[in-house]
Amino acid sequence: MRTLDWVDGAIELIDQTKLPQETEILRLETVGDLVAAIKRLSVRGAPALGVAGGYGVALAASIHDPTTDPTGFDAAVRSIREARPTAVNLARMVDRVAQVVAADLANGCANALAEAGRVAEEELAASTAMGDLGADLARELATERDGAGLRVMTICNTGGLATVERGTALAVIQTLHERGELVEALPLETRPLLQGGRLTTWELQRMGAPHRLLVDSAGPFLLSRGAADLVVIGADRVAANGDTANKIGSFALALGARHAGVPFVVVAPESTVDLETPNGDAIEIEDRGSQEVASVRGVPVAPEGTPGVNPAFDVTPVELITALVTERRVVRFDQGQSL
Amino acid sequence: MRTLDWVDGAIELIDQTKLPQETEILRLETVGDLVAAIKRLSVRGAPALGVAGGYGVALAASIHDPTTDPTGFDAAVRSIREARPTAVNLARMVDRVAQVVAADLANGCANALAEAGRVAEEELAASTAMGDLGADLARELATERDGAGLRVMTICNTGGLATVERGTALAVIQTLHERGELVEALPLETRPLLQGGRLTTWELQRMGAPHRLLVDSAGPFLLSRGAADLVVIGADRVAANGDTANKIGSFALALGARHAGVPFVVVAPESTVDLETPNGDAIEIEDRGSQEVASVRGVPVAPEGTPGVNPAFDVTPVELITALVTERRVVRFDQGQSL
Repeated sequence: MRTLDWVDGAIELIDQTKLPQETEILRLETVGDLVAAIKRLSVRGAPALGVAGGYGVALAASIHDPTTDPTGFDAAVRSIREARPTAVNLARMVDRVAQVVAADLANGCANALAEAGRVAEEELAASTAMGDLGADLARELATERDGAGLRVMTICNTGGLATVERGTALAVIQTLHERGELVEALPLETRPLLQGGRLTTWELQRMGAPHRLLVDSAGPFLLSRGAADLVVIGADRVAANGDTANKIGSFALALGARHAGVPFVVVAPESTVDLETPNGDAIEIEDRGSQEVASVRGVPVAPEGTPGVNPAFDVTPVELITALVTERRVVRFDQGQSL
Repeated sequence: MRTLDWVDGAIELIDQTKLPQETEILRLETVGDLVAAIKRLSVRGAPALGVAGGYGVALAASIHDPTTDPTGFDAAVRSIREARPTAVNLARMVDRVAQVVAADLANGCANALAEAGRVAEEELAASTAMGDLGADLARELATERDGAGLRVMTICNTGGLATVERGTALAVIQTLHERGELVEALPLETRPLLQGGRLTTWELQRMGAPHRLLVDSAGPFLLSRGAADLVVIGADRVAANGDTANKIGSFALALGARHAGVPFVVVAPESTVDLETPNGDAIEIEDRGSQEVASVRGVPVAPEGTPGVNPAFDVTPVELITALVTERRVVRFDQGQSL
């Protein structure tokens, strides 16, 4: 089931702010509804935001006929595009679908809908391909080691909630599960925002995959005690040399994997590879402030006013990465291959 | 200020379950009050429990005169001794003080009070010695590197709350601060029970030491970016070869320290050294169950019924440990010294 879709003239999506306690489907019938949903993070994840933006243009065209109300249509499109200024995928997909509308105003809404559908199909095809290539690689790496079962550790949420269906690193776990090869998934909870605990466990439960949740700091230690055969993570950005920026905690997990001799695989679409960035040192680390560290879902976990350091992501050097899997290729860094 | 003391015929202690939101002094006037406080973890930490137990025997003797009501006295002592069955220090110190009472029943209460005071003094002297030796070592290690300032990363709560005053690893940080050498303390929040976020920050605030809190998984990465000059941790048990069991997350921090070339120092009393245990492989890891992982201070952070893996502590191999500091000596593992 898709976590986001066009249903009877409106956008329907799973409200991620309610997970995991409630699985609530939000029905967005106006552009204002959609913009509010994006702003409050009811939908998040670059690919999911792109698809939501694409369908948003169709929604805008269905309300503001671009032939009779071009001003209203343009304003609506702009409001979607700017709902989250730093999400590149959102702006890119809104522009792509808006161009299709501009090319044939009379059929704007129908064409927008078709194009947004294609964006979703492309995302799904990429997820499926990453899952297949990643699962093949997982089997190969297990065979190279000792034919061990596939217990797979991961961090953050890289599944259908962040895309449309399946995802990136979690697509690999899902494919292994569908092939009957997954012994167990071991998601890290992923403080401070707990995407692993709240979202990944929810997705694993929904796909019926066996899993156990752990606190982040237990990951490297459990690897040292032989608890997993593979680590798979997603990526925010992959530099030209293979250094990978991803959710905070990925680097510690990579150190643990290296110490334990467990393969460490990055799964991310080609669009994540950034050849303009030579290496990890060139990646600036965003600090998201003290509040996320000093509280958990609104509950204080430190004295009031405690200052925090809160790097949103970290950088794993390519020396610690076994391979990168995209929708098109597998790059075995451990065998000297490069981007 | 002591976190636990004998005041006007009763035990007074800071209720750790209320921290950091409220600093509430519990006054325990009956043995039942004390047993309940121990059971609900209002007082925790092996040394602190030992001192609480010692004063508990004095309290018991003040209520049940051992010359006229030996049965009542014995039952009261037994209830304190068994308040937490696995806390060795509690039973050991209760026995030590009860023996003093048995030796001279007529002066039981006064002698018990004096002996419990000695237990507290001994704990404080040990903390002071560990702080001094550790701070000297910290300065020495900084000089060996490049004379850098002392920014010190730590995990869990190893301060006065777990002892009587000062503590173990946190005593080193406190001593550095008192000497004017501490640039910044960097405590990890320490999921699942958040002793770092709730208790260590509270102690650092109280001693006026500059600090910033971080999530556990950020520790190894921030070390790789040069954020700290030293890591100090406490210990639950040190094996004969130096392998050290401590709060989960210590091992990941040790991997990060090694990768970054930052010294990693264990601070623990001699009573923690267990020569009967040859090495870390012989240390059994307790799993504390799923509930602590699936919730934070009562708030669910995973779908209901999510299974978890929850190792309470981990084992850091001696190869990753620069030195052990006790109240009597410094053992430089990095220079080939051994226990």
